Amino acid sequence: MRILVLGGDGYLGWPTAMRFSARGHEVFIVDNFSRRRWHHEHSTDSLTPIASLGERIEAWRELTGRNIQAMIGNIDDGEFLDQVVADVLPEAVVHYGEQPSAPYSMISRRHAVNTQQTNVIGTLNLLFSLRDRVPDCHLVKLGTMGEYGTPNIDIEEGYLDIEHNGRTETILYPKLPGSLYHLSKVHDSNNIHFACRMWGTRATDLNQGVVYGIETDETKLDERLATRFDYDDVFGTALNRFCVQAIIGHPLTVYGKGGQTRGYLNIVDTLRCVELAVLNPADPGEFRVFNQFTEQFSVMELAEIVQRAGKEHGLDVRIEPIENPRLELEEHYYNAKHTKLLDLGLEPHYLSETLVESMFGVIERYRDRVIADAILPRDRWRPGVEAPSS
Amino acid sequence: MRILVLGGDGYLGWPTAMRFSARGHEVFIVDNFSRRRWHHEHSTDSLTPIASLGERIEAWRELTGRNIQAMIGNIDDGEFLDQVVADVLPEAVVHYGEQPSAPYSMISRRHAVNTQQTNVIGTLNLLFSLRDRVPDCHLVKLGTMGEYGTPNIDIEEGYLDIEHNGRTETILYPKLPGSLYHLSKVHDSNNIHFACRMWGTRATDLNQGVVYGIETDETKLDERLATRFDYDDVFGTALNRFCVQAIIGHPLTVYGKGGQTRGYLNIVDTLRCVELAVLNPADPGEFRVFNQFTEQFSVMELAEIVQRAGKEHGLDVRIEPIENPRLELEEHYYNAKHTKLLDLGLEPHYLSETLVESMFGVIERYRDRVIADAILPRDRWRPGVEAPSS
Repeated sequence: MRILVLGGDGYLGWPTAMRFSARGHEVFIVDNFSRRRWHHEHSTDSLTPIASLGERIEAWRELTGRNIQAMIGNIDDGEFLDQVVADVLPEAVVHYGEQPSAPYSMISRRHAVNTQQTNVIGTLNLLFSLRDRVPDCHLVKLGTMGEYGTPNIDIEEGYLDIEHNGRTETILYPKLPGSLYHLSKVHDSNNIHFACRMWGTRATDLNQGVVYGIETDETKLDERLATRFDYDDVFGTALNRFCVQAIIGHPLTVYGKGGQTRGYLNIVDTLRCVELAVLNPADPGEFRVFNQFTEQFSVMELAEIVQRAGKEHGLDVRIEPIENPRLELEEHYYNAKHTKLLDLGLEPHYLSETLVESMFGVIERYRDRVIADAILPRDRWRPGVEAPSS
Repeated sequence: MRILVLGGDGYLGWPTAMRFSARGHEVFIVDNFSRRRWHHEHSTDSLTPIASLGERIEAWRELTGRNIQAMIGNIDDGEFLDQVVADVLPEAVVHYGEQPSAPYSMISRRHAVNTQQTNVIGTLNLLFSLRDRVPDCHLVKLGTMGEYGTPNIDIEEGYLDIEHNGRTETILYPKLPGSLYHLSKVHDSNNIHFACRMWGTRATDLNQGVVYGIETDETKLDERLATRFDYDDVFGTALNRFCVQAIIGHPLTVYGKGGQTRGYLNIVDTLRCVELAVLNPADPGEFRVFNQFTEQFSVMELAEIVQRAGKEHGLDVRIEPIENPRLELEEHYYNAKHTKLLDLGLEPHYLSETLVESMFGVIERYRDRVIADAILPRDRWRPGVEAPSS
């Protein structure tokens, strides 16, 4: 298939591009290097040294004989994106091309506007190009489980049947997200759903949990193929950050009570989920929603897993709750369905102390690159206001 | 009170500004004249000749001795808007400052992006300025009943209590809008709701029905105070367009079967609703939603009212269904609640043949200004696709 990966230089985009290429698909990448730029802005960096996109692509060709073609530009530039879609004529677009950090979106007005501008307008441009250039193309869009928030009812996969005053309706599952980043994804989902209803667009919205892990089958082939690994307060995610803290001897910084429960998955499962979505496309006009995670954990449970793995590894790991910079419930009901990708054939790689220890191994290799200043939160989401208790 | 009216040069914004000024409030206007510019772009114009904003303000001062202060700029320019809010320190912001046309948003990618950019980013900028400059200020935001779409269940005012698998939750009323313009308002509502939850913003979201009418107490004082009156395919609304068609002897162009049912209200009731919202502000952190309309009509019912009023007026008015350029249900369930503004004291001005005849009078005065070419729809929302039957 001809597959266009937006954000193909990123944490998940680059391994996704290699995976599809390895399986014989024609892969095209769009990126504008904004993720690298945002790290410059915050004086943070990937723990793993990452090659330039040109070096990555060259190394991939050298090792596999396969070609990945890159086009550099902003997807909120509609003329640029439309030309790309017209040239590539993709059968599937995997859309990672967004500002992906909740804390980033909450730093200031400029960061919030940048996030919603990049994400909402970029996706809107894409929807028009799909309609006008490749109406049969399947859009695989990365959303997040964070769009749902933490409702008091079970979280379904995309839709909910309701009854009201004796009449019934099926609605998009209600969303109550906790950051302006998450809201940008909600806006995206609503715009994509519209394109499906009005223009017959095929779309799969992958509401992804928190991804952890460093290595995939392809990144392990050569150091130049490594993907980025972020552990900082803006772009790092909980488990990745805890593993780095364990190695450098920093207490694991649990926000508040640590009862915040979320869905998680291994980076190798992300790649498989995206592949399953691409190989089993949505029907014309279908807005299909998958909840893409394999396990639920509270933040404290994650910290305890890292603590146990640290003990096995000979590390003395302490857990230190710190004031929560986010405004979120620290104890809440959480029961999210996630069967549709399993039905398509996903075989999960569950989190284990063994996996955490293998992450320790990679982190130790790059331990001298850790920027310790970048780990603790530097921004509060609501200055002067305490997080609510549940 | 110090009241800032965004979009204060528009159809509703200008009469709103005068009404508050007449009642002794300090009124400030922001506008960038985009509505006038969009009409230039489409070779359309207001039926009523409208004075420049400067002439309007000068005439108002001359007639009433009262001052309205205008600041010219784009609200999606965050620096500009923030300076305005810091200078004015408003106690209430009435936010009409958006691209207001569904057909406009569906013309092309450029028009869709322009709509979501102007509306979503403009409102997002405003939310930050309210948080940082005037956290106690009350935001009165103009939304639309069109955000809800036409669900198979009763439409409540903002929220819905649901039960699922034995647990309960209160959700924002689900929305399924029919244009990218309406979606921009849904995105706005979600962003505003977030600001209320996270930052304690006070907000009232007025989901307004279709407004009809030309005159208010203040516009009648002097020709220079007239507000715009649009009847074209892009910015005109159903009843206003039908009245113009009746006067120029054009058949009333009902889209499809004419069963599309919506909420409607008189422009004088719009002003009263906005005033009631401003005088009875939402609580800190409250996201309050009012459904702002007084009566429901199907498009065919409206056409028949105009036909009867035409007969009284000595006009031979024909009704001519044309192919629907929109993708919408032409027969559907529709039962929308609208009691909250009545509870605050709204006394509706209901639609009557007499009111339609008084509109005829104004239209006849400006009959030679009608641009007949501008009445029929020139854009289809989904080229080559029929509207669905219900």
